[in-house]
Amino acid sequence: MNKVNEDLLRERSKCTFNIEELTHFLDGGIEVTLERKRREQAVLSKREELFCGVPDEYLSHKEKYENSIRKGTILFKILRQIYNMENSNLSDYRNVLNGVLGASISQDGSPFGLHYIMFMPVLISQADEEQKKKWVDRALNCQIIGTYAQTELGHGTFIRGLETTATYDLETQEFILHSPTLTSYKWWPGGLGQTANYCIVVAQLYTKGKCRGIHPFIVQVRDEETHEPLPGIKVGEIGTKMGLNSVNNGYLGFDHVRIPRTNMLMKHAKVLEDGTYIKSKNNKLIYGTMVFVRVIIVFDSVNYLSKAVTIATRFSAVRRQSQLKEGEPELQILDYVTQQEMIFTAIAGCFAMKFNARRLWDTFNGINTQLHEGNFERLGELHALACCLKAVSTADAARFTERCRLACGGHGYMHSSNLPLTYALTTASCTYEGDNTVLLLQTARFLLKVWREIDTVPVTPTIAYLKTVSSPGFQDKWENSIKGIVRGFQIVSMKKISSCVEIMTNKIMSGMSQEDAWNTTSIQLVSAAESHCRAIVLSTFHEDLSKMSSTVSAPLAEVLQQLLELYTVYWALEKYGDLLLYTSISKTDIEYLRRWLVTLLGKIRPNAVGLVDGFDIIDEMLDSTLGAYDGRVYERLMAQAQKSPLNADTVNKSFHKYLKPFMKGKL
Amino acid sequence: MNKVNEDLLRERSKCTFNIEELTHFLDGGIEVTLERKRREQAVLSKREELFCGVPDEYLSHKEKYENSIRKGTILFKILRQIYNMENSNLSDYRNVLNGVLGASISQDGSPFGLHYIMFMPVLISQADEEQKKKWVDRALNCQIIGTYAQTELGHGTFIRGLETTATYDLETQEFILHSPTLTSYKWWPGGLGQTANYCIVVAQLYTKGKCRGIHPFIVQVRDEETHEPLPGIKVGEIGTKMGLNSVNNGYLGFDHVRIPRTNMLMKHAKVLEDGTYIKSKNNKLIYGTMVFVRVIIVFDSVNYLSKAVTIATRFSAVRRQSQLKEGEPELQILDYVTQQEMIFTAIAGCFAMKFNARRLWDTFNGINTQLHEGNFERLGELHALACCLKAVSTADAARFTERCRLACGGHGYMHSSNLPLTYALTTASCTYEGDNTVLLLQTARFLLKVWREIDTVPVTPTIAYLKTVSSPGFQDKWENSIKGIVRGFQIVSMKKISSCVEIMTNKIMSGMSQEDAWNTTSIQLVSAAESHCRAIVLSTFHEDLSKMSSTVSAPLAEVLQQLLELYTVYWALEKYGDLLLYTSISKTDIEYLRRWLVTLLGKIRPNAVGLVDGFDIIDEMLDSTLGAYDGRVYERLMAQAQKSPLNADTVNKSFHKYLKPFMKGKL
Repeated sequence: MNKVNEDLLRERSKCTFNIEELTHFLDGGIEVTLERKRREQAVLSKREELFCGVPDEYLSHKEKYENSIRKGTILFKILRQIYNMENSNLSDYRNVLNGVLGASISQDGSPFGLHYIMFMPVLISQADEEQKKKWVDRALNCQIIGTYAQTELGHGTFIRGLETTATYDLETQEFILHSPTLTSYKWWPGGLGQTANYCIVVAQLYTKGKCRGIHPFIVQVRDEETHEPLPGIKVGEIGTKMGLNSVNNGYLGFDHVRIPRTNMLMKHAKVLEDGTYIKSKNNKLIYGTMVFVRVIIVFDSVNYLSKAVTIATRFSAVRRQSQLKEGEPELQILDYVTQQEMIFTAIAGCFAMKFNARRLWDTFNGINTQLHEGNFERLGELHALACCLKAVSTADAARFTERCRLACGGHGYMHSSNLPLTYALTTASCTYEGDNTVLLLQTARFLLKVWREIDTVPVTPTIAYLKTVSSPGFQDKWENSIKGIVRGFQIVSMKKISSCVEIMTNKIMSGMSQEDAWNTTSIQLVSAAESHCRAIVLSTFHEDLSKMSSTVSAPLAEVLQQLLELYTVYWALEKYGDLLLYTSISKTDIEYLRRWLVTLLGKIRPNAVGLVDGFDIIDEMLDSTLGAYDGRVYERLMAQAQKSPLNADTVNKSFHKYLKPFMKGKL
Repeated sequence: MNKVNEDLLRERSKCTFNIEELTHFLDGGIEVTLERKRREQAVLSKREELFCGVPDEYLSHKEKYENSIRKGTILFKILRQIYNMENSNLSDYRNVLNGVLGASISQDGSPFGLHYIMFMPVLISQADEEQKKKWVDRALNCQIIGTYAQTELGHGTFIRGLETTATYDLETQEFILHSPTLTSYKWWPGGLGQTANYCIVVAQLYTKGKCRGIHPFIVQVRDEETHEPLPGIKVGEIGTKMGLNSVNNGYLGFDHVRIPRTNMLMKHAKVLEDGTYIKSKNNKLIYGTMVFVRVIIVFDSVNYLSKAVTIATRFSAVRRQSQLKEGEPELQILDYVTQQEMIFTAIAGCFAMKFNARRLWDTFNGINTQLHEGNFERLGELHALACCLKAVSTADAARFTERCRLACGGHGYMHSSNLPLTYALTTASCTYEGDNTVLLLQTARFLLKVWREIDTVPVTPTIAYLKTVSSPGFQDKWENSIKGIVRGFQIVSMKKISSCVEIMTNKIMSGMSQEDAWNTTSIQLVSAAESHCRAIVLSTFHEDLSKMSSTVSAPLAEVLQQLLELYTVYWALEKYGDLLLYTSISKTDIEYLRRWLVTLLGKIRPNAVGLVDGFDIIDEMLDSTLGAYDGRVYERLMAQAQKSPLNADTVNKSFHKYLKPFMKGKL
């Protein structure tokens, strides 16, 4: 299967820029590309072991789990070899994370994921030195496998409402962990079902008869030799989901389980031997981890969408359907303008979100340094930014991924296209680590506060535009340019925020409670936070691309500029109701933007395949019959069908047992 | 598990209307309700056999198939008993269809579905009398199981491009069926994989050396006794999909397979013994079946969405999360206005689409009678209407279903909620029986034709509004009422259509080909067709509810009116860009509509659970841990997890084989 489809060959020959240059640009430099490729090669060296047997989609849930353990142990053994984990810290840890998220071939998640993504970082950031000595090395070497158990059956968003208790017993100097209700069972932690033997458990701490709020405890859940659940531990897996079925999400209940006092993670808050509770000095530091995970999710969104759009673009170049003119050959579906709109806007979205993820990462690092120096001034801004970027990037990734899937017609509905799973993974991120609606409301809360104080308090970078576009001398004259559109989005955001403040104020003045005013304005609050985020995303893409375009060759700079324009014009047209309502845009301007959009689609058309080739996602990671580099779509669809165990027998046993008697009327 | 959750009890006690009255209203009369319940009871009498064993979600693909045959034969035996199928015709057939779609408990489709939905109706409408005698009775009694094979690996939308050939051999008076390429393999037919032994195959007919276009042939694919594939038949299943995994979708290739001349379905076109080809006199009649299937899909969309919204509403009444005010009990999440907007608009959407499906059904029946009398005047209109209603109802159902799923947070991601599968089924209908974008372009083609002729040709009912709102004396003054909004949507539609005509004309005048002008205008064409459909949906809901509201009690009429208002105001706010661009709506009007929306959400809130109870979907059909009538959400989630075979052993065998050696560093 090595001969490349001719349409794809022709597409590649038409590309106007150097594809490798794009790859290096996207990776962040040639060295990063080379490092990534070395890592991929290490994984691919075990190709035969990793990709043998019946494809996961045909397996039962239990078989899928067993296969994920088989593959996971191969994969993580390689990763353990690649990284020298002995002197690990949060930055080295990020390499591990890259390993997990990037090079891993665990298409549907891994039971080891949370060990790296949550267990280790929480251990590193919340254990005291004594505790780190005890657990970090063992965790890094996978001598113990851990997970992080916070969410319960009855509580996700509202963590103050968690019901699991950890009560200090002065006599034995132990904590007693207990699940008082069914709803207090932990529910969701990855790897918790059958894999992990340790777990960080978030529980309500009680000392000296008083509740001290939620704190993290390290709890052994299974015997290290036999893997049997320890006494008082009720553990299992939660069942199948839309996606992430190799993650082994679990539940966990405690029946008065005792752990030593020293198993409470005590870097910040402490419980002394005599039961004295010592509060954390800077409990705001835990926001750092939360923001960190959301930054990672924004990067993830780009990765998922890059996959989806690579598949949809290559398929649309190979697939031919219908004639525009009678008697002519059938068209590549990539030539239909409606198809181009669905796919090219998604390509542009990958670039927009990549720039924003990077900027967020830099902002996070900058502010995080300040945090550790005790400066919490910009924490609110960072938190608000991460909240809305997480919400908007995951929602967009899910939406564009699904558009890519639908753009592939019936074949996009096949698991072997890998589009259904990619959608399932992107849409999951709209919920986990903060439901998107809840997150946008958190950003809105920050924005309203900022707006109320805008004349008295100095504004920080991400909200400086609010002051600019609301200043007395500001000229609100519409301009059909990228700058003009970005400015338009900033005006929309400012006006929505100020309108929310006004509405809330009026409601409260007329006697409504603060809370009811908030609730009855929440649809507009969400909308305002989204608009703020759109303004940020567009301006960041615009600014950072402008800065970088001198560092790339002219042909690449040209196509990057086209993508910026496409993304900006597309969103202007998606939101022209807002622009009409809050800016001076006219009907003629909108018609102009519509023509601009179609012109841009035409310009990007010859480079579409080159652009997704530039993402450089190897076939083993794409795992798609429709998206492979060689474009042998139909051969791969048929080959994957042949792997179905149902096709191993010409007649299934159910024919004799049920079908024949039924057809003969004898059932 | 029979005690009902207390929050749900309280919700039900608050309901202001009679829930049974709503059920009868939705079913179309108390007799229909009783008939439906009888049917459901017949199925439920086999409850133990149908719902035993490990839930499907934990099974392998092969096991799922075997279970679907086991359950399907039980189910269809009951249906065979319920209906007297001896004197079946298309109308009786509809009962069968209701049986399949309504009462069936096949959550993820059935390998017998296409036998009823396509094989039998095509047989009935396209076989001649001789052929009907030979096959219809055997099919009705399931002595043979058939399917319908049209789509190929390489062709879906463009059926003229199908590659399978049926060449008439004068000497033996047989057709030779052949698959000349890999892309010519049939791909997708339900039940084709391992279940059906007969198949209607659509192939390019060749007689006397000439291609006569595509025609249907009945082909035996498996031996009636052994079920082995017949010589020259290459048949199997296509693999797993996002949903519909119990449907047993198959592929089929022919290696010079011979069938008797009399196996071409000859009601319309014919091939005589000497190879003479006789064209169909009214080949437009086949549009009837196509439209019929699309009508059914609109009804399906309502059913899927009703399920999703029942689940989301009940769960949101049971689920409590966060406090609005410190120290107060946690709120039912149904009290959050953002949640209400997501869910109540979906409830309203069920009603809107139900009214529209009924109207479409009546229109179809009216026009179908005309067709059979040789009057094809309104066929174009019917086809255009069915195309856009299929596209908009499936797209809306998918979108609202997914919003309902997301509104249930993490638990909505669990298969046991049944929301992921419900989404997978609704989104499938965006593609099958005509890709939505392609269908909207077909409607657009009709609308442009109508607009060009509007002054010269009498307009038919569904497009009469175009003339009204474009007539010289028409007053375009915005009015904040249902009537005003409907009128606004009609103006939007008219202006978009006229704008497309103008754009196309200008492009062609400036030298562009007709085809390129069409392609480069296609984004706006799709948008115009969607706006036309929105205008139809809103006006039909408004008109038909007004007609019927005198037939129901005042409390029910009141809540129906609220739903109409909610649906109309919601869509006005979704599309206010269009309204601002094309009507005289003002910023103040939009602010008014926003307040109206929140007021309506508040009015519907006490009746939300009553409304979804009124859909009267039995627990066995909902099949949802989150949506069951008793609201025992957490007990059901845990109970379903316990059914996972992974939880049967405390330690999975992969621990000893892979995990322990890995953890001990020995792998």
